[in-house]
Amino acid sequence: MPDEQGHPTLNEMDLGAVLAALADPLRRRVVTTLIDEPEGTERTCASFDLGVSKSSLTYHFRVLREAGLVTHVDYGNSRKVKLRRHDLESRFPGMLDLLTNESRARQ
Amino acid sequence: MPDEQGHPTLNEMDLGAVLAALADPLRRRVVTTLIDEPEGTERTCASFDLGVSKSSLTYHFRVLREAGLVTHVDYGNSRKVKLRRHDLESRFPGMLDLLTNESRARQ
Repeated sequence: MPDEQGHPTLNEMDLGAVLAALADPLRRRVVTTLIDEPEGTERTCASFDLGVSKSSLTYHFRVLREAGLVTHVDYGNSRKVKLRRHDLESRFPGMLDLLTNESRARQ
Repeated sequence: MPDEQGHPTLNEMDLGAVLAALADPLRRRVVTTLIDEPEGTERTCASFDLGVSKSSLTYHFRVLREAGLVTHVDYGNSRKVKLRRHDLESRFPGMLDLLTNESRARQ
């Protein structure tokens, strides 16, 4: 079962949910940004400058978390997100490369 | 511009549209079935036994065609679909493998 914050375990990750999460350009931008950061980087949701309302931001990060793409780390008065890089590489080999290649090709 | 049947060119293919098309389990099943078929296989839409109405079938195949995943080949009184295997391998390297691996792992 997903934990109380909605993080699925490795086996619970569903390709359909992951693809649906990544189909959105803003959510894809969050993930490709995190892929390019050093391993283990944690960032606040606001730091991605997505240019959307706070409620939209909350919604997009919830979709990413529930699909298993990011972990939310709670620091009491702030919350940060971290890419589940190893989990994703192990569960869906090649997916992060696909996103990186496409993101670079379009820059 | 996409042609009159809505097939995008290689450069018009958009990763967001492809991921959205593949997020649906029925559409993903069509694509993974075609991946496993010999190169150049053409099949009727009905042959996939998706268990949905004719209008749903038309809708799902339109989404696949407009995303660039399949080509529709018109034979006058019948229409068949073919995977755009080379285009997909060239435009989104690793994506077909990702789908195949996941489909095999879940069988």
